[in-house]
Amino acid sequence: MLEKLREEVYKANIALPTHGLVVFTWGNASGFDPDSDLFVIKPSGVAYEELTPSNLVVCDLDGNVVEGDLNPSSDTPTHAVLYKAWGDRIQGVVHTHSSWATSWAQAGKSIPCYGTTQADYFYGDIPCMRSLSQTEIEGAYEAETGNVIVDGFAEKNLNPLSIPGCLIRNHGVFSWGTNSNEAAYHAVVMEECAKMALHTEQINPDVKPAPQFLIDKHYERKHGKNAYYGQK
Amino acid sequence: MLEKLREEVYKANIALPTHGLVVFTWGNASGFDPDSDLFVIKPSGVAYEELTPSNLVVCDLDGNVVEGDLNPSSDTPTHAVLYKAWGDRIQGVVHTHSSWATSWAQAGKSIPCYGTTQADYFYGDIPCMRSLSQTEIEGAYEAETGNVIVDGFAEKNLNPLSIPGCLIRNHGVFSWGTNSNEAAYHAVVMEECAKMALHTEQINPDVKPAPQFLIDKHYERKHGKNAYYGQK
Amino acid sequence: MLEKLREEVYKANIALPTHGLVVFTWGNASGFDPDSDLFVIKPSGVAYEELTPSNLVVCDLDGNVVEGDLNPSSDTPTHAVLYKAWGDRIQGVVHTHSSWATSWAQAGKSIPCYGTTQADYFYGDIPCMRSLSQTEIEGAYEAETGNVIVDGFAEKNLNPLSIPGCLIRNHGVFSWGTNSNEAAYHAVVMEECAKMALHTEQINPDVKPAPQFLIDKHYERKHGKNAYYGQK
Amino acid sequence: MLEKLREEVYKANIALPTHGLVVFTWGNASGFDPDSDLFVIKPSGVAYEELTPSNLVVCDLDGNVVEGDLNPSSDTPTHAVLYKAWGDRIQGVVHTHSSWATSWAQAGKSIPCYGTTQADYFYGDIPCMRSLSQTEIEGAYEAETGNVIVDGFAEKNLNPLSIPGCLIRNHGVFSWGTNSNEAAYHAVVMEECAKMALHTEQINPDVKPAPQFLIDKHYERKHGKNAYYGQK
Repeated sequence: MLEKLREEVYKANIALPTHGLVVFTWGNASGFDPDSDLFVIKPSGVAYEELTPSNLVVCDLDGNVVEGDLNPSSDTPTHAVLYKAWGDRIQGVVHTHSSWATSWAQAGKSIPCYGTTQADYFYGDIPCMRSLSQTEIEGAYEAETGNVIVDGFAEKNLNPLSIPGCLIRNHGVFSWGTNSNEAAYHAVVMEECAKMALHTEQINPDVKPAPQFLIDKHYERKHGKNAYYGQK
Repeated sequence: MLEKLREEVYKANIALPTHGLVVFTWGNASGFDPDSDLFVIKPSGVAYEELTPSNLVVCDLDGNVVEGDLNPSSDTPTHAVLYKAWGDRIQGVVHTHSSWATSWAQAGKSIPCYGTTQADYFYGDIPCMRSLSQTEIEGAYEAETGNVIVDGFAEKNLNPLSIPGCLIRNHGVFSWGTNSNEAAYHAVVMEECAKMALHTEQINPDVKPAPQFLIDKHYERKHGKNAYYGQK
Repeated sequence: MLEKLREEVYKANIALPTHGLVVFTWGNASGFDPDSDLFVIKPSGVAYEELTPSNLVVCDLDGNVVEGDLNPSSDTPTHAVLYKAWGDRIQGVVHTHSSWATSWAQAGKSIPCYGTTQADYFYGDIPCMRSLSQTEIEGAYEAETGNVIVDGFAEKNLNPLSIPGCLIRNHGVFSWGTNSNEAAYHAVVMEECAKMALHTEQINPDVKPAPQFLIDKHYERKHGKNAYYGQK
Repeated sequence: MLEKLREEVYKANIALPTHGLVVFTWGNASGFDPDSDLFVIKPSGVAYEELTPSNLVVCDLDGNVVEGDLNPSSDTPTHAVLYKAWGDRIQGVVHTHSSWATSWAQAGKSIPCYGTTQADYFYGDIPCMRSLSQTEIEGAYEAETGNVIVDGFAEKNLNPLSIPGCLIRNHGVFSWGTNSNEAAYHAVVMEECAKMALHTEQINPDVKPAPQFLIDKHYERKHGKNAYYGQK
């Protein structure tokens, strides 16, 4: 089932430790198939070195296991909520506790856009979402985490394709993209930008974000109608 | 003697440089066998690349060598005190000078619980124990280090299974677990959380610890009666 | 065409990820042939592991492709401007978003010369150039980036051979040298000095730059008429 | 000539990049033979991967080349001064620009002894020596660097065996030991302690050095008459 997607999601999962974003099993990647409304996700608590395309788990949009012998990631309901809301545009999701970005999440601060490294992929700040309430945490915690993301983006009028990731307060990172490898890529971008943003503020405590027209230029030269970065 | 435990403790020792927690010989792991009241520990000052399961040293709970040609770790009496007090629950102990956690120990500060990365393994702050007195240091120094841990946990009414590690003021890190590999795992958790905690405070000097109900949720989903993380 | 230069520029490009200066495709190196007024540059958005000497792109000083099937780096016009102005002395150019140096660029601060590590290669501060105007960014952006460098060096009366690199505000790093490998080397120097400069200021907020006579001594013993460092 | 010493010094030099203390050729190690009053040292500006035991250079205590086709390290006169003064006790010297320790040197601050990691090898602070004067820098610069170390240790009444390294203001690190491998070991210790000391101060700006009796205990258990660390 979903052989090709399994291969892709396997690679996206392996990219996380390769890029130094996860320690032990502290991360997971999934990929969504809009035709079947199913997604493939890492099993819970399984070491990356024991991961194979075939031991990934297939789930439906309610987070039920459709294929697989192992329990899916405990964060599965968060992935499901994101695909339910944005599955027409977003077909890959990644969760990590990567060190620098998680430090911003723990600090409860959005990462300001201080330069083109961030603007090449994020059209502005990387937002830190609101805290979950006690009721949300004691209820359907992982699904509520997804709701906080989707509702927050709607309230702030943010397009998930132009802001492909966010921080979960006191927790960690979610990123996404048009496929799981792009979601993993954006998780790397977030980590690099998080690290540089702290150092930027330490070098110059009065620093201001990059001017909007520079953000426009860089985001557009990669993602706009007349994009000219890369080979197509 | 204790062949299987030797294998396990060997792996736990090797995990320390593999995870970047030790430089040269600045760390050691041990594992306890509650049936014989003996533990297996790294020999003192031996390079990790020269370590084998068979050159580990077997000691009794008074720290006497029962089997082995080499001197056991100079920290052996600390391990012995921990097993004497908690050996019914704790069967692995690790000591390191890992960089970020040791910086907190040198600063004399407990590591606040700023997020779920810590709450997944530590049910609250990672405590920095009180300084040893001059008399304790000039006396049975390494045993007194163990006493400071055991007495400190008793005074603060902390359960060593839910707070599986602590900082030794001006010195370094001790961690533990139900076996030596879990103790090494907790040493990695401490190092990651120590690093993120400093950066969290640098990003937001007014930051508060994570709310207790979030700590409850994460600790319980991994370790509680109804735990649902992982494969069992 | 330019077989030997292709080999050299290939190696300079590969040196960037090897030294930890680039993530994904966030960097590029080029080399200039003053006889033909052509330069060889990395193709845009191509992964370093897919790079070969033969898929590099040959461009003229107006940034037109003279040989190659791939699009050249989107930063090609910046390289072209630098060779046009300084091609008699500068035959290698490198661009990166290396983490520490880019943090200084984002902070809008020149890197003070705090010691001999910097003075061995940079005869003074590593300058952060002025911001590009909105008009410049919305116009021939990449060429204007080159103009800001060349004009800035002229205004400050800086010799590009003795200050072989600079920071682009809110963006990243350009470095150069008598060939592309030297340009890559200088990019490494900038990253190391950027990291140490922040830590130096954190250790001592009142620190002053190194005295001019120490800078003179170190720069001269490597690059002066009576240089005595190295084997010739 | 001095075959065995060449082997040892070769290994000490290789240890420097292996432990992440040097970038490119920014470091060197030497070893002294007290019988012949000669020392073996790295050639100047030669890449570590091109180093062999046989291309090391043999010098006398005036820094003259006695054997070897290559120029010795430009820092050779500093090594010579140290052996001249302390060659009865010190038979290995290392120079690096390692990142964290050099940041302290650039900041002009001694590294306080905040814990046992430092006290295990340094009996107190790691001193930052006074700045060289303009006359010293413009004169026999490298020999004067050695004089600043030797004279500074005499003035402060420091024993080079119990404080096996120091910082050179606005420059970098010198360390030493009873042989070249021990000198390299102490360079690693300095880098680790420099990193932790900054983080310690960042975690707790009011931190005080470790109590003297703890420093005594740790230094003595490794180096004192009744030392009990290690295998003999």
